[in-house]
Amino acid sequence: MSRSGRTQPTPPAPTSADVAPGAETPRVTIADIAREAGVSVPTVSKVLNGHAQVAQGTRDRVEALLEKHNYLRRRSRPTRSVELIDLVINEIDSPWSVEVIQGVEREAARHGVGVVITAVHGRPADILRWLDNLTRRGSDGVILAVTALPAGQRRKIQDLRVPLVVVDPVGNPDPAIPSVGATNWPGGLAATQHLLALGHRRIGIITGPTDIQCARARLDGYRAALEGGGIAVDPDLIRRGDFHHETGFSGMRELLALDRPPTAVFACSDLQALGAYEAIRQAGLHVGTDVSVVGFDDVASAAWASPPLTTVRQPLGEMAAMGARIVLKGVDAVLPGGTQRLELATDLVIRESTGPARG
Amino acid sequence: MSRSGRTQPTPPAPTSADVAPGAETPRVTIADIAREAGVSVPTVSKVLNGHAQVAQGTRDRVEALLEKHNYLRRRSRPTRSVELIDLVINEIDSPWSVEVIQGVEREAARHGVGVVITAVHGRPADILRWLDNLTRRGSDGVILAVTALPAGQRRKIQDLRVPLVVVDPVGNPDPAIPSVGATNWPGGLAATQHLLALGHRRIGIITGPTDIQCARARLDGYRAALEGGGIAVDPDLIRRGDFHHETGFSGMRELLALDRPPTAVFACSDLQALGAYEAIRQAGLHVGTDVSVVGFDDVASAAWASPPLTTVRQPLGEMAAMGARIVLKGVDAVLPGGTQRLELATDLVIRESTGPARG
Repeated sequence: MSRSGRTQPTPPAPTSADVAPGAETPRVTIADIAREAGVSVPTVSKVLNGHAQVAQGTRDRVEALLEKHNYLRRRSRPTRSVELIDLVINEIDSPWSVEVIQGVEREAARHGVGVVITAVHGRPADILRWLDNLTRRGSDGVILAVTALPAGQRRKIQDLRVPLVVVDPVGNPDPAIPSVGATNWPGGLAATQHLLALGHRRIGIITGPTDIQCARARLDGYRAALEGGGIAVDPDLIRRGDFHHETGFSGMRELLALDRPPTAVFACSDLQALGAYEAIRQAGLHVGTDVSVVGFDDVASAAWASPPLTTVRQPLGEMAAMGARIVLKGVDAVLPGGTQRLELATDLVIRESTGPARG
Repeated sequence: MSRSGRTQPTPPAPTSADVAPGAETPRVTIADIAREAGVSVPTVSKVLNGHAQVAQGTRDRVEALLEKHNYLRRRSRPTRSVELIDLVINEIDSPWSVEVIQGVEREAARHGVGVVITAVHGRPADILRWLDNLTRRGSDGVILAVTALPAGQRRKIQDLRVPLVVVDPVGNPDPAIPSVGATNWPGGLAATQHLLALGHRRIGIITGPTDIQCARARLDGYRAALEGGGIAVDPDLIRRGDFHHETGFSGMRELLALDRPPTAVFACSDLQALGAYEAIRQAGLHVGTDVSVVGFDDVASAAWASPPLTTVRQPLGEMAAMGARIVLKGVDAVLPGGTQRLELATDLVIRESTGPARG
């Protein structure tokens, strides 16, 4: 996965939504206006959005500056609507893609807008093909749910002057683009604290790819919970995976082969948890009684597992719906004034794959 | 689910693809041409599609008639392409929807065309909202993957004069619309024969809703296999479900509570099979050793189950891709001449949820 989008950040390109058409003057941001008016960025946003709770004197000062700098508020919809928004994902058959597609489609339907779905398989050629198709037909907004995008391609998308948002469960936000993510560190903390509360003391973890921020945050949440419980982190109990079924299986098999195997494991994704189930079954053991397992995501398969999986719910559908709202209504109408990044809370869902530690 | 589309069939409405623009004469079909030329329908199709294997004399006669009746061959693409096709499904979060979405998207991407996805939740209001959106923006083709559509709404879609195809895994084909399905009866037969070959004699079934054709066909395949194996069908071993997890669970629980419970079950959908897993686990038994389970569909969850699920693979992705090809290239270019209905073969995938019958 290319990380150039992170290591070489580029300044945000101006978009049609926040510059007056034909204006040749340098772009003025809400932050510039706030500085000059001597108020906070949220206050400027409130004025822009017509909120009541701003003192009249402040409102007058801010509005005068907005006019002076020819600042055009971001429109709720592009001038020429094509009644479509675009959702770009890497793969359609990942269980969490389903939640993302569903969230975007539901929100778009509420606005009477269609959703064009494109899978780009992490391949630059597929992204270019999509851009080519989008250029020919137009789009009212783009929701990127891909883990990383090279800076050149991001620039190409921004050049289209279409509202853009990133639904970013992996938590590598690009400061130039509005994004919606989830709270991963508290999720890892809650998963591990749940196992501690059940009396487990040897708790394993099968991590995601820890060069991705969300995987690292979940691991750190695990460490923090253990240390908070007075338990030293044992490197033997940490296995690295890639979030898929296979690494959950192999990681769990390695953990069970230890001289002192763990009595519980935090699998860091639901697919890894299901892989762990299979390793536990093949060892002649039972999930929930012999070995407790916690997943992460709460995709549909979690509730269908046998036993049903205890997991950290990531509100992917809500994150995706929030992304759709941002491109359809403008970022200022959805996120708190001046904010470009929002993280929705994760939530522990207790089912039957976790139980008390045995003697 | 409304079945009016089945009980009150309406004649096919003319579409822009097979009538000359502005023609006031009654519509002439390929069948009419074939009758008048004294040849078969496939032969006329071959002439239309420029196939080589038609005798020159026949070709001349057919072409003269096509010209006389002002028959315009169906175009491979509508006159004014909008670079988009539409996929309409009931729910996005059904595991088989994922396969359908993926198949359509992959095929559309090969043609450089975007896919607009709409979930209509079986609700007429949602269908009308989608039609309204589609009318405003246009579409190059519509793939319906909904189980049934009232005749009035189908007529509305046909009035848009957009190429239309039904991807129809439930097997209730509408003779007026090209459709792609799967072979359900042979699938039910193969599932049950597999269990017989493993030595099982008491084989239960948890059916789908048997007023839907595919569910009835799977049940009949089960009956045929038992009778072929010299085993009388025992009504006690037949439980009715609705293809979802919950009815798989309750159906299996009822079967296990019988005085003489079955040693194997054909669950008729993968979700029902996963529900059966949970009932077997709660009874303190093990899937594959104590009770064999066969699913139907081969959605992604089947391979992730523990133990991995033996199931009848329904090629949903290929069916969906075929649907996309039909709207993009024209039905005559994809289906054998004159055919409106194609069924792709199902296929038994043997994993670890089935094993030899015990003593």
